[in-house]
Amino acid sequence: MIVVMNEGATEAQIEHVKEKLAALGFGIHYSKGVERTVLGVIGQKSPGLLESIEAMEGVEKIVPIMKPFKLASQEFKRETTIVDVSGVKIGSSKLVVMAGPCAVENEEQMLLTAKAVKKAGASMLRGGAFKPRTSPYAFQGLEEDGLKILKQVSREVGIPFVTEVVNPRDVDLVVEYADMLQIGARNMQNFTLLKEVGKTKKPVMLKRGLAATIEEWLMAAEYILSEGNYDVVLCERGIRTYETSTRNTLDLSAIPTIKRLSHLPVVVDPSHASGKRHLVLPLSRAAIAAGADGLIIEVHPDPENALSDGPQSLTFDGFDEVMKKLEPIATAMERQI
Amino acid sequence: MIVVMNEGATEAQIEHVKEKLAALGFGIHYSKGVERTVLGVIGQKSPGLLESIEAMEGVEKIVPIMKPFKLASQEFKRETTIVDVSGVKIGSSKLVVMAGPCAVENEEQMLLTAKAVKKAGASMLRGGAFKPRTSPYAFQGLEEDGLKILKQVSREVGIPFVTEVVNPRDVDLVVEYADMLQIGARNMQNFTLLKEVGKTKKPVMLKRGLAATIEEWLMAAEYILSEGNYDVVLCERGIRTYETSTRNTLDLSAIPTIKRLSHLPVVVDPSHASGKRHLVLPLSRAAIAAGADGLIIEVHPDPENALSDGPQSLTFDGFDEVMKKLEPIATAMERQI
Amino acid sequence: MIVVMNEGATEAQIEHVKEKLAALGFGIHYSKGVERTVLGVIGQKSPGLLESIEAMEGVEKIVPIMKPFKLASQEFKRETTIVDVSGVKIGSSKLVVMAGPCAVENEEQMLLTAKAVKKAGASMLRGGAFKPRTSPYAFQGLEEDGLKILKQVSREVGIPFVTEVVNPRDVDLVVEYADMLQIGARNMQNFTLLKEVGKTKKPVMLKRGLAATIEEWLMAAEYILSEGNYDVVLCERGIRTYETSTRNTLDLSAIPTIKRLSHLPVVVDPSHASGKRHLVLPLSRAAIAAGADGLIIEVHPDPENALSDGPQSLTFDGFDEVMKKLEPIATAMERQI
Amino acid sequence: MIVVMNEGATEAQIEHVKEKLAALGFGIHYSKGVERTVLGVIGQKSPGLLESIEAMEGVEKIVPIMKPFKLASQEFKRETTIVDVSGVKIGSSKLVVMAGPCAVENEEQMLLTAKAVKKAGASMLRGGAFKPRTSPYAFQGLEEDGLKILKQVSREVGIPFVTEVVNPRDVDLVVEYADMLQIGARNMQNFTLLKEVGKTKKPVMLKRGLAATIEEWLMAAEYILSEGNYDVVLCERGIRTYETSTRNTLDLSAIPTIKRLSHLPVVVDPSHASGKRHLVLPLSRAAIAAGADGLIIEVHPDPENALSDGPQSLTFDGFDEVMKKLEPIATAMERQI
Repeated sequence: MIVVMNEGATEAQIEHVKEKLAALGFGIHYSKGVERTVLGVIGQKSPGLLESIEAMEGVEKIVPIMKPFKLASQEFKRETTIVDVSGVKIGSSKLVVMAGPCAVENEEQMLLTAKAVKKAGASMLRGGAFKPRTSPYAFQGLEEDGLKILKQVSREVGIPFVTEVVNPRDVDLVVEYADMLQIGARNMQNFTLLKEVGKTKKPVMLKRGLAATIEEWLMAAEYILSEGNYDVVLCERGIRTYETSTRNTLDLSAIPTIKRLSHLPVVVDPSHASGKRHLVLPLSRAAIAAGADGLIIEVHPDPENALSDGPQSLTFDGFDEVMKKLEPIATAMERQI
Repeated sequence: MIVVMNEGATEAQIEHVKEKLAALGFGIHYSKGVERTVLGVIGQKSPGLLESIEAMEGVEKIVPIMKPFKLASQEFKRETTIVDVSGVKIGSSKLVVMAGPCAVENEEQMLLTAKAVKKAGASMLRGGAFKPRTSPYAFQGLEEDGLKILKQVSREVGIPFVTEVVNPRDVDLVVEYADMLQIGARNMQNFTLLKEVGKTKKPVMLKRGLAATIEEWLMAAEYILSEGNYDVVLCERGIRTYETSTRNTLDLSAIPTIKRLSHLPVVVDPSHASGKRHLVLPLSRAAIAAGADGLIIEVHPDPENALSDGPQSLTFDGFDEVMKKLEPIATAMERQI
Repeated sequence: MIVVMNEGATEAQIEHVKEKLAALGFGIHYSKGVERTVLGVIGQKSPGLLESIEAMEGVEKIVPIMKPFKLASQEFKRETTIVDVSGVKIGSSKLVVMAGPCAVENEEQMLLTAKAVKKAGASMLRGGAFKPRTSPYAFQGLEEDGLKILKQVSREVGIPFVTEVVNPRDVDLVVEYADMLQIGARNMQNFTLLKEVGKTKKPVMLKRGLAATIEEWLMAAEYILSEGNYDVVLCERGIRTYETSTRNTLDLSAIPTIKRLSHLPVVVDPSHASGKRHLVLPLSRAAIAAGADGLIIEVHPDPENALSDGPQSLTFDGFDEVMKKLEPIATAMERQI
Repeated sequence: MIVVMNEGATEAQIEHVKEKLAALGFGIHYSKGVERTVLGVIGQKSPGLLESIEAMEGVEKIVPIMKPFKLASQEFKRETTIVDVSGVKIGSSKLVVMAGPCAVENEEQMLLTAKAVKKAGASMLRGGAFKPRTSPYAFQGLEEDGLKILKQVSREVGIPFVTEVVNPRDVDLVVEYADMLQIGARNMQNFTLLKEVGKTKKPVMLKRGLAATIEEWLMAAEYILSEGNYDVVLCERGIRTYETSTRNTLDLSAIPTIKRLSHLPVVVDPSHASGKRHLVLPLSRAAIAAGADGLIIEVHPDPENALSDGPQSLTFDGFDEVMKKLEPIATAMERQI
């Protein structure tokens, strides 16, 4: 890291910082310019140290040189990780499409959906049993009953499923049923929950927080990895900006940026990103073209009677059409779908 | 709510929406303009209904008229709620200042701090035993040992304390020790945790999420209130913007806006908002002038050796000076500090 | 538009608003709910009227129903406008790639670049003679000398060019030389300049402002159209967000959103959006897949000696490779490049 | 500045960067860590150089150490600049309040307003003759007729006025009439206009751009200063964020931040920042408490018939009340109003 001193920093202040760095075991490169003194600091220590130096008198700022994430980094592992979800490989040349309703409502809805999306080419089923809702008065999910429905439908149709877990206490329960755990955007920095899923052996899909930087997102993945669970898939789902014509602003630059920083696979959720059905196709195409490893798309047998997220859900026919239109783009990217 | 139909919506689509609304028990005001049809919908129903209408063919958008929060609203209760924290009243004409370190490090640190901040005029002590940190490799707090230190110091010095809870499983434990529970910014939409603290009888300080709208923040408060706990204090701590010269952008407009929408008291955290010690005084003054009911300020006996947030922590002398300089502003606002 | 009254609005206030609306010649639909009164207002008037109603006592908010832009809207013209730039058609099934350096530096640089990009498949040349720079001490462009170089090189190589105009006073001068005028992001709401280029017969490329909503962007286009110049191409170049790993956040949702709202063609600038050379290819692919009508890409014979924007400029070889890799995506979208 | 090389940078790449820096006349401090090589670069050169280094192979990033603004900086001048506007001193201990309507509509309106605001304690009059409006169909101002009205009313009542200039071509005209020129938020990076007003001898009020960083804002001021006009007052008017309950988010941290970086006075515009009349008082109080040197407030004799910005305009009585309530805060800050 680099320590930049204030323009008016005194010799004593500079000495004090140097002594402290030395006491902490760092090597120092001293560089006194005409207007500023800059200290190059060599060695890798706990991130807390940066803050303690920054708090010293005479210090203007600290410039970190190294990325704060290790296990999630390209430096740690060059080739893309392939996450195996009950036989479905995420991160390979075959694009993985997960599809299904926002919330599990009943068995019939899930069975119809599972068959329809599988037929159209989806590899995985999605559906929420625990729903984090902005309002305490909105439908909160069927909870364990929802998990049971998902499990049974998944077996019957032969398609693995991903479902969200929102409470550290429920991790064991969800692990029993699900093929893959989802951490939602609102829980991206729920560190307790991250550690809990890190202790399991289940693959995890980690959604980007509503206003999370790419670095914070990779640090959230690092929480899971640091507990021993390496099967993490990142999911870009739009970030919060001032633009109001879409629910969120899908940040597709995040895909090539992550591919350069990390070995973890990345999928894209065009449904939540836009909040609008008619944007699902163009954003899915763009996501594949930007290098995404898969998609997660909302599909509902009857969107206008959906208990949540109707406006962004595709019908079965709509989904089938989207899948057909994605094929040429996948081929252009030398991938299969 | 108002349902705005697409310019090209067919008569059949309009009829279909009207039938659905009628079936749901709503009254309808029909208004056919030259270019658009607009339906005024009368009656208060579940928020999920909005989505289901929005998903219908021919509907362009839904404009909600009513605020989605009830118990947190001015309509529910006109006068400001006064939250009593072991005798300290938040929301009264006396401004409440909470002060202390970011993290509990050891008993000596807390004892020195508690005495110093009480002497300078603080009414409450703050300190974290469970620390949500961006990096899994950073100091995560002393956990129950930290709570014990807080409790003992608090009793010895005679000053109640607020401390963060991050895990639904720890709520019972923290309730045993703390005078007030804090929900941090990263957990503002951790709905499981909100419901859990809503079931306790302890006052709660709810920090605004990093990118939360005022409405979402009040909905988070609604989660706590809807479980029966009415002692909620909101805490503005800055929102995420593109500006990089401060850690966050303190949104002081939020204070008068909330005062108009809600009866809950609001305090301000100038330390986390800015991330810089020298901004604590001007932002504290501005917060009081904008109508805040109190402040929460980071103070540490030795900021440069703090285990977290050193750069934004005041020394004891610095805090004492800030408190003295806040007095005239409090007086100008006809409040005491 | 819809006028929503405050919960506590008096009968007199409601009457006053109704009278005012009637006096202004609007039709009114009156709708008195249990808790709120809502007035539906029929008729299309000046946008200033909205504000005057919103200022009245008892009014909570105004909800506009109609889009504020007319000539730029889908309602005005259904089929996509094809803008003809000296024979190059923007908005047709053939994707238009504009390429060249950020700034014109000298004739040799431009001649080499024009030949190289034409050979690689670009249809248009780009290059700035007037440079809006954040610092007054940075290179500000060659001005008229730059225009002369552009003109001569363009004729010699047989490729039309687009160049930025920043000053209303220079519009006549730039019109004399350029095939297409560019309005930069920082000038998107320089209404004087917009009107001035609206009075010319030259095609205009209008970049999105750094923090402009799609609606504001279309209103800026409306300024040009309303002066009689219908040859406007929109250019998405990233918006400002809190994310720091890219210079801006490219908003590709804007493309399908605009395609639904407007008949104007849209191109994408992946170079300025990302600020990073290695992101140009993936973002170009994604832009085409999202439905863009073209791209504008920075290319420089010697990026490390460029007078501006070196880090995001491609070399000739780099550009050639990008063009080759875009072909399959264009084909997948049933377009040519 | 600091040059950070990629983890995998080759010796040849490092040598190449060192040679280039040496050729440009910089001193270099070489620092080879275990994982990264970092070069400290000594000397002050043109800002364009940073970019050219950043474009070189093997370079990860450039970290600038020095601020890019010179004449606007604290380093250039320690004490606060006092800007004299026809006898009114901005930046002194007396707070300057500028008040008046958004747009000049007619002489009677301006005369009534000038008398009322002067009586209530305002030192300056505001009013727009050239209005930058989002829609080309909205009222665009009375232009020169408006300037004439302003001038006459100003003389009659004995109160200097500030008015916006939007077109470089009109600068001479506006200079003839106005006591102070205003550069609006949308023109903050209209560099042509900045240079033009920099060549005049009139004081300038420079509003912060809708999404401008503090550094960009100071660079915009630098444009004016670098042309020889040192009489610049900065005006914070809110920035664009995702929050929708206020028109913009007033960034009061900007005031103490600028006071530390620059010698220029800063005023605050609570009317445009919030877009709501009821927020003017609390935000004005907060602005003074944060250290602002003055305020600019919208006042209109009949807000509901205003041609623009009615919802945020105060009536004469409302303004009088605000002024009275600001007095105690000014006194608490040891300033006069």
